[in-house]
Amino acid sequence: MATPTPTQVLSADEFKAAFREHPAGVAVITAIADGERVALTATSVASVSADPPLIMFSVSALSSSTPTILKAETVVIHLLNSDQLSIAKLGATHGIDRFADESIWSTFDSGEPYFHTVRAWIRGRVLSRTPAGGSAVILVEAIEAKVVDETHPPLVYHDRTWHSLGEHSRIEGV
Amino acid sequence: MATPTPTQVLSADEFKAAFREHPAGVAVITAIADGERVALTATSVASVSADPPLIMFSVSALSSSTPTILKAETVVIHLLNSDQLSIAKLGATHGIDRFADESIWSTFDSGEPYFHTVRAWIRGRVLSRTPAGGSAVILVEAIEAKVVDETHPPLVYHDRTWHSLGEHSRIEGV
Repeated sequence: MATPTPTQVLSADEFKAAFREHPAGVAVITAIADGERVALTATSVASVSADPPLIMFSVSALSSSTPTILKAETVVIHLLNSDQLSIAKLGATHGIDRFADESIWSTFDSGEPYFHTVRAWIRGRVLSRTPAGGSAVILVEAIEAKVVDETHPPLVYHDRTWHSLGEHSRIEGV
Repeated sequence: MATPTPTQVLSADEFKAAFREHPAGVAVITAIADGERVALTATSVASVSADPPLIMFSVSALSSSTPTILKAETVVIHLLNSDQLSIAKLGATHGIDRFADESIWSTFDSGEPYFHTVRAWIRGRVLSRTPAGGSAVILVEAIEAKVVDETHPPLVYHDRTWHSLGEHSRIEGV
């Protein structure tokens, strides 16, 4: 590796190699703007603060849902269980209608579509959209939330596949 | 639940209940500013973009490391394996000297302390620090990175305990 200088930037391939295996919980984000509904699977959702209740996630310029999410005033962040892989795949598959199966989603009085069968959902107001390369970092303040189903373990994405946590994956302290 | 209005905000307890079980990969962030070295365990690290190589994470006002990270021009983000739980605990324990054991860390020519025994580390330049409640969202551009050890599975934090991924946790597609 060359001696770094202040202007040096890592190549995309080197960056992907370092980050590829970093595991993450799986979320699906829905929104509506200009009458267009979108659903996007994201592994970048994180809690920023509990008081005030703030959440962040990033959206890529490569996603067809991004323009709508950038226009939306509110979003719904769904956290998924491992038995809800089909919803994760729905929001991660290009070129399909994520709302074709009307039995799995409804609409809030405030207009946003949401999926009912999830671990938990959080509806929030977009506070800021910060450009970051071709992507954007979205900061959201939670308005309301519901824990729907805590009986199954959460879904984890790692190294291009899906995992389930539980007693089988738990490790003891050192 | 009351009908939400645009100014309604979720209580901290409701927010924590919804987010408590969201799993995440584990990282330790190190930095130096004004001669003070800090190390902070974070579960909010996410890739934002590969080209340019951008990473985000959040820091809480409750952490003693936050003032130094907010002053630092560069940071080192370490991604951890499940056999590196001791480093995760080091960066998550209040009131201890995270650099007491000099055998586990070194200093880059550029000045930042870093831990050698990790899955991968990424050294980067802080592009922005966005206040978010009492916390802050930090956006970092990667300068250099090294994958140190991919032979062990990554460490995951979930519901206040630690997990390891592998064939035992993998689930098949539906």
